[in-house]
Amino acid sequence: MKIYDISMTIHDNMSVWDNKEAKKPKFITTVNYQTSDVYETTICMDMHTGTHIDAPLHMIKNGDKIEDYNLNQFIVKSRVLDFSHVKDKITVDDLKTKEINKNEFILLKTTNSNTDLFLDDFVYLDKDGAEYLVEKGVLGVGTDGMGIERDQEGFPTHITLLNEDIIILEGLRLKHIKEGTYLLIALPLKIKNVEATPCRAVLIER
Amino acid sequence: MKIYDISMTIHDNMSVWDNKEAKKPKFITTVNYQTSDVYETTICMDMHTGTHIDAPLHMIKNGDKIEDYNLNQFIVKSRVLDFSHVKDKITVDDLKTKEINKNEFILLKTTNSNTDLFLDDFVYLDKDGAEYLVEKGVLGVGTDGMGIERDQEGFPTHITLLNEDIIILEGLRLKHIKEGTYLLIALPLKIKNVEATPCRAVLIER
Repeated sequence: MKIYDISMTIHDNMSVWDNKEAKKPKFITTVNYQTSDVYETTICMDMHTGTHIDAPLHMIKNGDKIEDYNLNQFIVKSRVLDFSHVKDKITVDDLKTKEINKNEFILLKTTNSNTDLFLDDFVYLDKDGAEYLVEKGVLGVGTDGMGIERDQEGFPTHITLLNEDIIILEGLRLKHIKEGTYLLIALPLKIKNVEATPCRAVLIER
Repeated sequence: MKIYDISMTIHDNMSVWDNKEAKKPKFITTVNYQTSDVYETTICMDMHTGTHIDAPLHMIKNGDKIEDYNLNQFIVKSRVLDFSHVKDKITVDDLKTKEINKNEFILLKTTNSNTDLFLDDFVYLDKDGAEYLVEKGVLGVGTDGMGIERDQEGFPTHITLLNEDIIILEGLRLKHIKEGTYLLIALPLKIKNVEATPCRAVLIER
């Protein structure tokens, strides 16, 4: 069994959405070996830090929360699609060149995986592309961008997917992953009443 | 594939070690639908909140951190041992009544799983029991206590296991799990420079 780690590293100087200082995780060493015989850390972090799952509540009032999903949706057949040649955005025409099946979790590999920096012009999934994935009946959509779309008016890509309870997985690291099928494991933390949660995402090659 | 969730729910009024208010997670809703068109939460939590993994740095100066472990140790054959009949502590004699194999992740089911409250007298693993598990060559040890031991002088159970780089998984919920073998998935968050991290732990029945 070969495990590929596709998660971002969380640390105090990591890249975050829009490079906003307030969105960087803060670490507090509450006890250490200078004053105690144990070492303990507290973290303060935005739920959208690093590799994370978005649930509908993030963009839809009264939408489903992380706890409303069945865990079967996070241990699931996945297909990595290589769009490293695509500039700007992934469109329905780009998606039509690939095999996409019902009940698969689609992961979009782009040039976003080549850097850990937040780029204003990261490659995103456009609304028509999201609608096409809804039609295809996918279970979830993952991206190596820090978001599935840029700061678009009304967040149409998010809304299109989340309205259908299609999970969004953001902040993946896919540079070292070849196009193909894998088992995706990306379990959310078991946190109540939240719209998102960081997760450790891995691909298993069967 | 049957997935059993063996994780505690993280929420603002959950039980924590020694019922210390400071150890309860804090949630901040940074934006919501009263003032914005998105919903976002920040969490502040001790790394030992709910179901979590302890690495050696927690108890050993300059010990290994979470990032020093191979992910193969967190997707692994596991054996749940039922010690629901045991009072006070699990000893080497208790362990000798069970099958325990090299390279398995052992999960100790006790009456701790019957309550979500923190109890001062929760059932723990004693030092001799930990030494026996080291001899057996297990990969990790999980417990349904909030800790693998109570507040023992010098933390001998932790130190015995962590000295051998045996992972400790604390705060499991095992009431609904039968003794037997499973695939354990308990991946840590990918956080740098920490001694522990919350995780979503599940068992897969094959």
